[in-house]
Amino acid sequence: MSITILRTPDAWWVRTPDGAARIDTEAKTTGELLAEHEQIEAARGSRTTVDPATLELVSPVTTPCRVVAQMTNFASHVKDSGLDPDTIPLAFFRKASGSISGPFDDIVRPAHVRYLDYEVEIGLVIGRELPVGTAVMADNWASFVAGLVVTNDVSARDVQLPKTQFFESKSYPTFTPVGPSLVLLDDDELKRFGDLRLRLWVNGELRQDSVVDDDMVYSPPEALQGLSRFQRLDEGDLLLTGTPAGTALSAPPKPLEIIAAFLPPTLKWKIFFQRQAQNPKYLKQGDVVEVTIGTDDGAIDLGRQRTVVRGE
Amino acid sequence: MSITILRTPDAWWVRTPDGAARIDTEAKTTGELLAEHEQIEAARGSRTTVDPATLELVSPVTTPCRVVAQMTNFASHVKDSGLDPDTIPLAFFRKASGSISGPFDDIVRPAHVRYLDYEVEIGLVIGRELPVGTAVMADNWASFVAGLVVTNDVSARDVQLPKTQFFESKSYPTFTPVGPSLVLLDDDELKRFGDLRLRLWVNGELRQDSVVDDDMVYSPPEALQGLSRFQRLDEGDLLLTGTPAGTALSAPPKPLEIIAAFLPPTLKWKIFFQRQAQNPKYLKQGDVVEVTIGTDDGAIDLGRQRTVVRGE
Repeated sequence: MSITILRTPDAWWVRTPDGAARIDTEAKTTGELLAEHEQIEAARGSRTTVDPATLELVSPVTTPCRVVAQMTNFASHVKDSGLDPDTIPLAFFRKASGSISGPFDDIVRPAHVRYLDYEVEIGLVIGRELPVGTAVMADNWASFVAGLVVTNDVSARDVQLPKTQFFESKSYPTFTPVGPSLVLLDDDELKRFGDLRLRLWVNGELRQDSVVDDDMVYSPPEALQGLSRFQRLDEGDLLLTGTPAGTALSAPPKPLEIIAAFLPPTLKWKIFFQRQAQNPKYLKQGDVVEVTIGTDDGAIDLGRQRTVVRGE
Repeated sequence: MSITILRTPDAWWVRTPDGAARIDTEAKTTGELLAEHEQIEAARGSRTTVDPATLELVSPVTTPCRVVAQMTNFASHVKDSGLDPDTIPLAFFRKASGSISGPFDDIVRPAHVRYLDYEVEIGLVIGRELPVGTAVMADNWASFVAGLVVTNDVSARDVQLPKTQFFESKSYPTFTPVGPSLVLLDDDELKRFGDLRLRLWVNGELRQDSVVDDDMVYSPPEALQGLSRFQRLDEGDLLLTGTPAGTALSAPPKPLEIIAAFLPPTLKWKIFFQRQAQNPKYLKQGDVVEVTIGTDDGAIDLGRQRTVVRGE
């Protein structure tokens, strides 16, 4: 059965039938905690619990760690970006782990950013070292993954598109809210990865809603195999696996894109963002972003993240 | 006067008038060594030296560390890439630090890579922590930089271009040869940054040759200020500052690019790389790549890197 880990500024906790029990551990990092099977098991059996609602939860993934993200990886989002799911490559970029924030922290928009967007993503938390060259396949990928977290890959579109490299636009502090829970899953439970439904609401309006098996292009074993060609991973590192359609950003229709190919880049982006100025979906001060990931039958439930947007 | 640091698998060394003197230190990382001013000074005064040519040199930048690189940052290379230096943004991407290799190690081409390219770049080695939000300006940037290294930002073009994000194509093991020397410079010496000449030869043929002040778009203070908006840096981290013209890859002429905008991506890249197949400049098995960086008067000399290309 899945194990739900929570973290507060000074302690680690595990969900029990009665509430949350403190884990007797000195672990400072997620990687260290993941090695403490006995302490986690002991806490699961504890009858001394608190109401989880009273806990001040922080990200269950500690920093620094490696944060790697997959580019456009849901067919619906690929189409929404004006691309073709049949030819989209398996591609990765890095996010600074300093962008990780808690599941109930504010998302802070830097003063120079105008077009702030959201992306619900399933985060894989690595449980075992993956040196470059590791063979990852359908029958062993689960052994490298300790568990899953809810993440939001917050994106400054007016930085991302003109700069072309995604690193900066997705790396500002608070641009990776993680949690509330780190849900540890065994190999059999991870077989239900395809049943996970990702949902994101802004001020109560459902913006993203998709099930992995209906929509994901490159599965976790394909992604981990591709990544292990060039990037070592260790316990506690985080891989974001892409987002479905429904972000504020939509690509311009193909004819406009072809016209834009004739324009100098500054003019192209000026026209593009003039159009985006009429788009009401970008995040504004005070917007409430809620995110859930889980199977429809509730067997896997990564919890509900709730963040509020504010200006710098 | 500049201080030239060398590293072997088990020790750190400093150049003296007579040769290389071993530094009495337990430092395991470049960041730790940089804090040991007294030990470095003591070694500089040592009369017990060895011939540096007898040392088996490894990268003077230890791993893991953050490796951040600037996208197209020399006007000559921007034009060569079919872009406009006046509108090119200040943009960054990450390289896996597992790509760092020694100054005389082989560059290993992964079996799936066909178009292997070179890029001489000046590497800034960070000497002092730079939290996000640090104000970096022309009059204080030098205080954050401990010194400079020769680097080669090796690039798999057939991975880089279709994937659009540069992370993978530049992160394979051995894709960042660093060294031979880490040259520590004081604030006054760093004022001569603009006089540095970057050169790269393949099999004795000069392919890249450019002086910073003639060609660099975003200077180190501008780059560090831009980076500190979103990425913390610490002692021993590495920033690659871009490469001048002369790489194997050249952009297609503008009319071809506009025609390509009408094509599906797979067809576009197929045609593009069919043209590249006639380009003899890509690196092949056995090619010798030599790289130097220094001022023409020899006051700053980062040394000569020599690597040989081999297949996996």
